[in-house]
Amino acid sequence: MTVQTNRSKKDAPTRLVIHGGAGAMVRGKLTPEREFAFTQLLAQSLTAGHAILTAGGSSIDAVIAAIVVMEDSPLLNAGKGAVFTHTGINELDASIMDGATRMAGAVAAVSTIRNPIRAAHAVMKKSKHVMLIGQGAEAFAAEQGLEIVDPSYFFTQFRWNQLQKAITEDRVLRDHDADPAEPLPGKDKKHGTVGAVALDRYGNLAAGTSTGGYTNKQFGRVGDTPIIGAGTYADNHSIAVSATGSGEMFIRAAAAFNAAAQVRFQQLPIAEAADNTLSEIAAIGGDGGLILLDAKGNYAMRFNTSGMYRGTIGSDGVAHIGLFSGEEVPLT
Amino acid sequence: MTVQTNRSKKDAPTRLVIHGGAGAMVRGKLTPEREFAFTQLLAQSLTAGHAILTAGGSSIDAVIAAIVVMEDSPLLNAGKGAVFTHTGINELDASIMDGATRMAGAVAAVSTIRNPIRAAHAVMKKSKHVMLIGQGAEAFAAEQGLEIVDPSYFFTQFRWNQLQKAITEDRVLRDHDADPAEPLPGKDKKHGTVGAVALDRYGNLAAGTSTGGYTNKQFGRVGDTPIIGAGTYADNHSIAVSATGSGEMFIRAAAAFNAAAQVRFQQLPIAEAADNTLSEIAAIGGDGGLILLDAKGNYAMRFNTSGMYRGTIGSDGVAHIGLFSGEEVPLT
Repeated sequence: MTVQTNRSKKDAPTRLVIHGGAGAMVRGKLTPEREFAFTQLLAQSLTAGHAILTAGGSSIDAVIAAIVVMEDSPLLNAGKGAVFTHTGINELDASIMDGATRMAGAVAAVSTIRNPIRAAHAVMKKSKHVMLIGQGAEAFAAEQGLEIVDPSYFFTQFRWNQLQKAITEDRVLRDHDADPAEPLPGKDKKHGTVGAVALDRYGNLAAGTSTGGYTNKQFGRVGDTPIIGAGTYADNHSIAVSATGSGEMFIRAAAAFNAAAQVRFQQLPIAEAADNTLSEIAAIGGDGGLILLDAKGNYAMRFNTSGMYRGTIGSDGVAHIGLFSGEEVPLT
Repeated sequence: MTVQTNRSKKDAPTRLVIHGGAGAMVRGKLTPEREFAFTQLLAQSLTAGHAILTAGGSSIDAVIAAIVVMEDSPLLNAGKGAVFTHTGINELDASIMDGATRMAGAVAAVSTIRNPIRAAHAVMKKSKHVMLIGQGAEAFAAEQGLEIVDPSYFFTQFRWNQLQKAITEDRVLRDHDADPAEPLPGKDKKHGTVGAVALDRYGNLAAGTSTGGYTNKQFGRVGDTPIIGAGTYADNHSIAVSATGSGEMFIRAAAAFNAAAQVRFQQLPIAEAADNTLSEIAAIGGDGGLILLDAKGNYAMRFNTSGMYRGTIGSDGVAHIGLFSGEEVPLT
C-alpha cells in the first residue's frame, strides 16, 4: 500500500463508489441468474476496495483493488471479458489519478496486460509519463513485472459471438451485456466500462477507469477511458470522477474535468455538476453515467440511461448496489 | 473549404493566432539567420491561414492551413522536422476541434502520415471516432486518401544529432531548437509543438495542435497534444485554445479545457484564465504556453517560459510575431 504523508485526517470517513457500465438496459431481459451474478460481482469489488480503506490503505490502492475484481471477471467489459475489435483482438484502455498529487497514469490499446489498471498505475508511479499506448505500454508493463498474458486470455465465447453478430449486422456495439441470443438493440446503447472513485481516511481522493471499448470497433480507436479529464479525474480540491458512456462525446465534453470544474469554479453540488455534464453530453448525442466523490465523502452516481451497474460502501461497511434507475439495494 | 451554415455574422472580424512552441530559449544562442528563418516561417503560417479567412473560409480550414505550413517545415517539431523517439523513429500526434459543433479529431503515434493535422481532421469529419492511434490511424488516413510517406520523410540530420546526444547523456529532451553544437540545457525546457486557433467571419472558433513529442522519448508515450481538453479545445461558447509545454503536466491539469472552463464558468478574461492555468501547471512542475481566442476576437498568447514562438493576424492583415518574452513585432 502507498504510504501517505497526510495523516492529519486519519479519522475521516472513507467511501468507495464503483460502476460497471451504463446503458439502455432492460430489466425484463436480465435473467435472475445474471442479475445475481452482476450484484455479487459488484459486491466483491466493493468488499475488496473497502478492505483496503478499512486497513488504512490509500484511495489509490482501493481503486485498484475494486477495479481488478471487475477486470478479472468475464461479466464486464474490462480485462477478462473485454469485447473484440473488428479485427478480432481485445484492445484495452485504463487510467488512474491520485487526487492528492494529481499524478496520473494511463494505457491505451494494450492486448497482453492482464490488469490494465495496474499498468496505468505503474505508468503513474514508475515512469515520467502519463500515457503510454500499444506495444510501448506493453513493453513498459513487462519491465515493471506486471502480469503479461497471451492475448487469448481475454477471449470469451460470449464476446466472440457478439463480434460475429456485430460484423454480420455491420454495427459497432458498446454493449456489455447484450445477450447473443437476443436481437441486438437498434442503437449503440450500452457501455461496459468499469470504474471506481475512493476517499481514504487521510482525506485523499482517487479515481480509476478501465474498459475493453466497443465491440467491432475500428482498429486503434481510443475512447474516453484512458483520457485524463474525460474518463477519469481526481483532485482533492474538487472531486474524483469516473465516467462510462459514449466515449467520443465524453471526450468532446471533457466529461470528468467538466464536472470537477463546475464544483471547483462554481461551487455546484456534485450531483448537479454531474447532471449538467450529462445534459451537455446528451446535447451532442451521447449518453452514459458518472460516479463522483468529494473529499468530505459526498458522492453521486448519475446516469441518463435506463441503467448503470453501480455500488457504494462507506465507513459503516454497508454496501449499496443498483442496476437500474431508481434501484439501490443495501447489502449487509 | 467547409460550408458553414451560420453565416449571420459574416461581417465579424477574423483572427488567427499561432504558436511554434515555448521554452527556455536564450536570445544570445539564436543566430540572426535562425531568428529570421523562424520569423519567416511564422509569417508564412499566418499568411496561409489568413488567406483562408479572408476568402470566407472556415476557422477549421484556417487552422489546418496554418499548421500544415509549420508541419512541412523542418524548423519546428511537428511533421517534417519532428524529433526522434528513443528507438529512432518519429511518432507524431495531432488534434483539432471545431468550436461550432464541438466535433473533434485526433491521431497519436503515427509515423507515415505527412500531415498529422489533416489526419486528425479526417478522423473528425469521416469517422465515428475522436481518436485513432498508431497503425489504426495510419490505415484510416490511407483509406481517406491522405498523403502517406515513408517514415524516412521525417528524418532530419539536426534531429538525429539531437537524439544521439540525448542518448549519450541519457536525457529526454523537449527542445525544438537545441543547437547540437551547443551544450544541452540542464533540464527539459523547450517544447516544439505547433498550434493554431482561429475565428472566422461566421463567428466560429477552431483550434488545432501538432507535435513530434520529445527527443529520446519512450516508445508509445503520448503527451497532451492529441488529448482533447489538454492540448486542444474549442467551443464557440467559451474559447479556442492550443497548448505547448510539459505534456504530462498539461494533461494532469486538463490545460486547454481548464482555461476554457474559467472563461465559461467564472467569466474570467482569457489572459487571466491562461495565467491561472499556467500557474496551476507550474505548481506541479510544468511550464509552457497557451494561445487563446474567443468568439469576439479577443486573444491572448501567454507563457511562463522565456520564449514562445508565436504570431497573430486579424482582419487588418497585419501580422504580429514574437519569439521571446516582451517582444512582438508587427510585420507589414
